[in-house]
Amino acid sequence: MQATVLYGPHDVRVEDRPEPTIEEPTDAIISLPVTCICGSDLWPYRGISVFPAATPMGHEYCGIVEEVGRGVTSLRRGQFVIGSFFASDNTCPHCHHGYQSSCQHATPVGGAQAPRLRVPLADGTLVATRDLPDADHIPSMLALSDVMGTGWFAADAANVKPGATVVVVGDGAVGLLGVLSAKQMGAERIIAMSRHESRQRLGREFGATDIVTERGDEGVERIKQLTNGVGADSVLECVGTQESMMQAIKSTRPGGYVGYVGVPHGVSLDGHQLFFSHVHLHGGPAPVRRYLSQLIDLVFKGKINPGKVFDLVLPLDRVAEGYRAMDERRAIKTLLRP
Amino acid sequence: MQATVLYGPHDVRVEDRPEPTIEEPTDAIISLPVTCICGSDLWPYRGISVFPAATPMGHEYCGIVEEVGRGVTSLRRGQFVIGSFFASDNTCPHCHHGYQSSCQHATPVGGAQAPRLRVPLADGTLVATRDLPDADHIPSMLALSDVMGTGWFAADAANVKPGATVVVVGDGAVGLLGVLSAKQMGAERIIAMSRHESRQRLGREFGATDIVTERGDEGVERIKQLTNGVGADSVLECVGTQESMMQAIKSTRPGGYVGYVGVPHGVSLDGHQLFFSHVHLHGGPAPVRRYLSQLIDLVFKGKINPGKVFDLVLPLDRVAEGYRAMDERRAIKTLLRP
Repeated sequence: MQATVLYGPHDVRVEDRPEPTIEEPTDAIISLPVTCICGSDLWPYRGISVFPAATPMGHEYCGIVEEVGRGVTSLRRGQFVIGSFFASDNTCPHCHHGYQSSCQHATPVGGAQAPRLRVPLADGTLVATRDLPDADHIPSMLALSDVMGTGWFAADAANVKPGATVVVVGDGAVGLLGVLSAKQMGAERIIAMSRHESRQRLGREFGATDIVTERGDEGVERIKQLTNGVGADSVLECVGTQESMMQAIKSTRPGGYVGYVGVPHGVSLDGHQLFFSHVHLHGGPAPVRRYLSQLIDLVFKGKINPGKVFDLVLPLDRVAEGYRAMDERRAIKTLLRP
Repeated sequence: MQATVLYGPHDVRVEDRPEPTIEEPTDAIISLPVTCICGSDLWPYRGISVFPAATPMGHEYCGIVEEVGRGVTSLRRGQFVIGSFFASDNTCPHCHHGYQSSCQHATPVGGAQAPRLRVPLADGTLVATRDLPDADHIPSMLALSDVMGTGWFAADAANVKPGATVVVVGDGAVGLLGVLSAKQMGAERIIAMSRHESRQRLGREFGATDIVTERGDEGVERIKQLTNGVGADSVLECVGTQESMMQAIKSTRPGGYVGYVGVPHGVSLDGHQLFFSHVHLHGGPAPVRRYLSQLIDLVFKGKINPGKVFDLVLPLDRVAEGYRAMDERRAIKTLLRP
């Protein structure tokens, strides 16, 4: 099959790769009607995080079960399923507490920018929809696999409650879906920090009530102005840099909550400053599995439409264009058709 | 009056100081039947944190109202009151959210190692007991002012729930009262990290079910062994060093909670490591005011006896001995009689 492989910084290619096969009895093979590029794929693409030579790319997926290993009991051929970027057994103590991305048997899923994918620990990882989704729901289902689940976790970790004042740091797909999540959770005021007009527009469509274009301490100052000097109840950090993290912490009122989902790159928190900020801090790799059933239901009911973050659609063999467009921030998120 | 003044590292003296007077209409003057030395007083005493020359010491207090400013409406002469080390108006948005130690008008209280004390923002800061406490309740009432309130906040910030497995890092007075707090909140298992026999004994009396004497990564390893490799639900960090903070974070299960109340000295948290730990982190200067009514009630009912942490009692004029005994860890906490 034709699949996506990263060879080096800015060197991503589609090439012939072996078809995935059942390797463990707990595996499933699924076929992918669509796939996509994640903001976190840009870290290795830009050479910021190291990766093994010739890495198969892609970790967001949904599709039709083609084959299951003999140990798989809850899934059958033909079902439409969604999973997370971490395979999990969904039975260990960490899974029981809702932290499937820290499952004691967590296994990263890779190689999803392709027509077919092997998913380990299929019973624990995959959630089947009751019915096959319509074609126009499929991008939203795909978004649940990572960006939507991650935005939702950011809002949940930031303890967004009805009536809350929320700030979202980061206007990538995750940040925008953090806005959508905060809106669903009943936030009254949602301040999106963004300087890109197309992203501001989608942010407003998803529920942002205010836009702040300033960054760093100026951005914090603006948030303070907008909140009568108090700060926000809940802040979603969806970038992962030192500046964005400090922007998030400083924008939060004492006793407020920072939910951080941007994978930290070079972030270091001063204990003394954090102590006197009085914020709650929670985050990490989103336990998407915890939310899948609920989010699938919201998509079917038409309450959320996270697929709107895909503003560029390309055939898989033009994946390199998709990476470039996201790298240059011309596209929010690229949908690929294998 | 005779009061305690810190002149330099290891140079604490009792000397004649002016009587406190009403300076603002919102002040109260209280007389202190007892006072005490805080673990945090040891930071400047040891020369680790800087302080102005000739600093009047002491920030834990309870006692009888002697005089109130004309702006004070809720207190009257003769009442027994307890306050926190931060004076707060108890009306600003941060106070309303229960973070009185981040009050928009927060004012540190100082000079309580003395027979009398001026308390600013008296209406917001002081909580009067319904009746005058018996003499044997007074040390416990004094403990509420800081150590007990701080231990309670640590347990609350660490989300201790009935049935929880809790770890307490630090066997100072705050750590020991963290054990007591976790017990009150219904923890099933309380693992105290301590290597001092007298502190272990008090820890067990307060509710510790296990003692771990190892520190750092060995300590973490021991916690993992004791929790079937899972880690604790709630960890109270009551020290404030890099080692203790990392010990706390690494002892917590993914999705678990670290409540940290040790004032961080030289602590720096790596964002990447924190992210993948999946812990909740909350702490800061304890908003003692939030808990005072509840804790006063528990002392009157005989449900908690935090005054037990005072294992050395001295007249105020021997305060220097009290500092030395705590500095050398011969005493857990020194009670002073002015």
